[in-house]
Amino acid sequence: MSEIDAADALVISTDPLHPANLIPELCASFYRLGWVTGTGGGICIRTGDKVYIAPSGVQKERIEPGHIFVLPYPQPSSPSPHTDRIFLRRPKLNLKESACTPLFWNAFEQRDAGSCIHTHSQNAVMATLLWEGDMFEISHQMIKGVRKGGNGPTLSYLDTLKVPIIANTPNEEDLKDSMAEAMEKHPDAAAILVRRHGIYVWGDDWQKAKTQTECLDYLFEIAVKMKLAGIPTVLNDQ
Amino acid sequence: MSEIDAADALVISTDPLHPANLIPELCASFYRLGWVTGTGGGICIRTGDKVYIAPSGVQKERIEPGHIFVLPYPQPSSPSPHTDRIFLRRPKLNLKESACTPLFWNAFEQRDAGSCIHTHSQNAVMATLLWEGDMFEISHQMIKGVRKGGNGPTLSYLDTLKVPIIANTPNEEDLKDSMAEAMEKHPDAAAILVRRHGIYVWGDDWQKAKTQTECLDYLFEIAVKMKLAGIPTVLNDQ
Amino acid sequence: MSEIDAADALVISTDPLHPANLIPELCASFYRLGWVTGTGGGICIRTGDKVYIAPSGVQKERIEPGHIFVLPYPQPSSPSPHTDRIFLRRPKLNLKESACTPLFWNAFEQRDAGSCIHTHSQNAVMATLLWEGDMFEISHQMIKGVRKGGNGPTLSYLDTLKVPIIANTPNEEDLKDSMAEAMEKHPDAAAILVRRHGIYVWGDDWQKAKTQTECLDYLFEIAVKMKLAGIPTVLNDQ
Amino acid sequence: MSEIDAADALVISTDPLHPANLIPELCASFYRLGWVTGTGGGICIRTGDKVYIAPSGVQKERIEPGHIFVLPYPQPSSPSPHTDRIFLRRPKLNLKESACTPLFWNAFEQRDAGSCIHTHSQNAVMATLLWEGDMFEISHQMIKGVRKGGNGPTLSYLDTLKVPIIANTPNEEDLKDSMAEAMEKHPDAAAILVRRHGIYVWGDDWQKAKTQTECLDYLFEIAVKMKLAGIPTVLNDQ
Repeated sequence: MSEIDAADALVISTDPLHPANLIPELCASFYRLGWVTGTGGGICIRTGDKVYIAPSGVQKERIEPGHIFVLPYPQPSSPSPHTDRIFLRRPKLNLKESACTPLFWNAFEQRDAGSCIHTHSQNAVMATLLWEGDMFEISHQMIKGVRKGGNGPTLSYLDTLKVPIIANTPNEEDLKDSMAEAMEKHPDAAAILVRRHGIYVWGDDWQKAKTQTECLDYLFEIAVKMKLAGIPTVLNDQ
Repeated sequence: MSEIDAADALVISTDPLHPANLIPELCASFYRLGWVTGTGGGICIRTGDKVYIAPSGVQKERIEPGHIFVLPYPQPSSPSPHTDRIFLRRPKLNLKESACTPLFWNAFEQRDAGSCIHTHSQNAVMATLLWEGDMFEISHQMIKGVRKGGNGPTLSYLDTLKVPIIANTPNEEDLKDSMAEAMEKHPDAAAILVRRHGIYVWGDDWQKAKTQTECLDYLFEIAVKMKLAGIPTVLNDQ
Repeated sequence: MSEIDAADALVISTDPLHPANLIPELCASFYRLGWVTGTGGGICIRTGDKVYIAPSGVQKERIEPGHIFVLPYPQPSSPSPHTDRIFLRRPKLNLKESACTPLFWNAFEQRDAGSCIHTHSQNAVMATLLWEGDMFEISHQMIKGVRKGGNGPTLSYLDTLKVPIIANTPNEEDLKDSMAEAMEKHPDAAAILVRRHGIYVWGDDWQKAKTQTECLDYLFEIAVKMKLAGIPTVLNDQ
Repeated sequence: MSEIDAADALVISTDPLHPANLIPELCASFYRLGWVTGTGGGICIRTGDKVYIAPSGVQKERIEPGHIFVLPYPQPSSPSPHTDRIFLRRPKLNLKESACTPLFWNAFEQRDAGSCIHTHSQNAVMATLLWEGDMFEISHQMIKGVRKGGNGPTLSYLDTLKVPIIANTPNEEDLKDSMAEAMEKHPDAAAILVRRHGIYVWGDDWQKAKTQTECLDYLFEIAVKMKLAGIPTVLNDQ
């Protein structure tokens, strides 16, 4: 087997749960949910020392396993726009890896995540518009699918879910530092909202990252409806 | 055939209408309806002396027949968090049965139900927020798909549909007593709403439980739209 | 071939466009559109002297060709709750023909329709709630997919679309006379709305009935949004 | 191979990315998005000197490759209702080419587009109702999937997206001149909105036309929500 064949072998598998098969399937399902409309958003999966990442700027419901990038983890230095990345496998097509790569890396490095999802969900964006401060908050809803810090124990119905909101930047990569800072300042945060843009959610594995993204999106949807109907989204128990 | 094989045989069938095949299919369709987002909700089916139940905390659109629990009905004592349950078959994976089990049991014991469905539908949750008392009410809509008590004759267009609303608890199991009490107090109730959480709906069989859940969800959706548009949801004929 | 086999042969065909195959497929697609939730609604197809009708009170997304009723057209007397109907073929299961049958017959007799569709669409129902009189009206929208009377020339962008609204009755069959009366009084009407219930739409064939139902539903949806946003739905050109 | 066979060969291919296969697939997916309800809307694809166009007034989710028209590009004179068009291939059925043909031609001639999409999206129509002037505007949202002029560099988060709105006409073809004029007056416009009707979006190829249509539709959706919630859609940075 030639060197190039060995690299391609990293994305060839008959197992539907192999990351190179899962990423296309999950992206197509996120498309149907309205999370990755028009090439935006996506998911990455890390299995120990390998990171599988979708290409940038492509139709997310039409990704094929052959389009997937594989990077070693950790990288000699954390990915940034100013660092040349090292790849184990790159698609032969003229594709670039997802612009979210440095942001996904935050989730790996700061939360030991096995997967990170980025959506442009309208529910998330509306939440960042209706919550004007730097924190989205909701309580007394079905928040128990969300884990403290994204990788800890699940929240209780009696907790208040808080998701930090950071400002957007023209280039996705430039969110790296402010996202990292928000994650460090709020160790219990299970996700980071980006105002007028979307959300980053992570988890121990793709299943947890996905179900937490669904829970959070559900909560943003109900919270926006409550806010517009004049119903408070946080209750005090005492 | 070994003892374990005999247990597994309970969930292996080529009949698409076998409960072990139906539950995965129906859960996937509930996922597309937004009823079981992020592992929440599900359906159980009882065929005489056997109860088929999905696992807890898993992606509901990805259940497989091999994930299904089978319990004998009746149990020596009614399932509760404080009782060890008896199983006819448990998945080999490290799964726990649905946390809704004791609530499903209410529907079997109090209404002789053949199936019970739990959703986190946004329409149901919004209804519990906009109807502040302990009863959701609507009249003069297509309520005739709903049966009195969930297992009796269908309602008429001229009846008023009433669905009791109970308070939520941090742990799903702890809803057992208040749900049972509401069912006893309101023998005509076809379902129980749980404020800030969702709904439990039952029926003589899975078809009736499913179509009644659809009817009710349709009614919550239109009722919420009416309420927000300032249209009364109950009319007096006389 | 026995007599019974001959009757069953009326619903057995390998042609996907045969009415007995089309009705299940179209009902499943109407289910996905939210038009026939919880057993409500449906479609009938008439090909010359035969009428194909779905059963009543069943899950509309799970109909099979073997569930289809075939009636001769015309019937000795127009179908009503007080007339025994004549069938060319009935399913062996314990099913009853759609309760809409007498209403579908109105469309055949008064407009020579080849197909009639009934939906419980929330857009249609909301339109009947927000338009309090006996007529829904909209102009200056994409109404040109709708035909005058349902079977005539298409409307122009400069016309005003008017859809009569009749009152609901507890039993579907009892709408027959008021629907017939509204169709006679408004020969240009392409459909009849039933307040707090839904809509009946017909066309020369199933394609026209379906595309007109889609156009009308689209118009109800935009009209409801416009009304709630305070935008007038009828403009005067002069 | 006879002359007729040669023409039909233009729409027969086993390649799923052949325009005659893509147009049916994309139209079906636009149907699911609610963009081409009830025969309205569609997509055309130009590959160098050949233009592939769907038929007019048919169910857009049921198009087959054999329904596709093929026209040479350029035509001796630009297509208009007053010009006989030249075809390389016409379906044998009694079909007419899309009424959008002269409007698609604007995109080819003025922007050298490889594809043009027309939708009746409710988001686009609501935007034309809530923005009463001749320009839709939004800033500080995910506009970077949209290209200047539809074929230039992508916009930046800090730009303001402007989409011209032209008045509707009873016949689709009669929009040709006002659309051409708006495109000439606004060389940076990536699309043209038609008030109370829909939108035309183009791109270098079908992928870019489609992803730009998705981005724009997403922006109309969020803009309408913002407007109705009283949130300004354009911010001034300085």
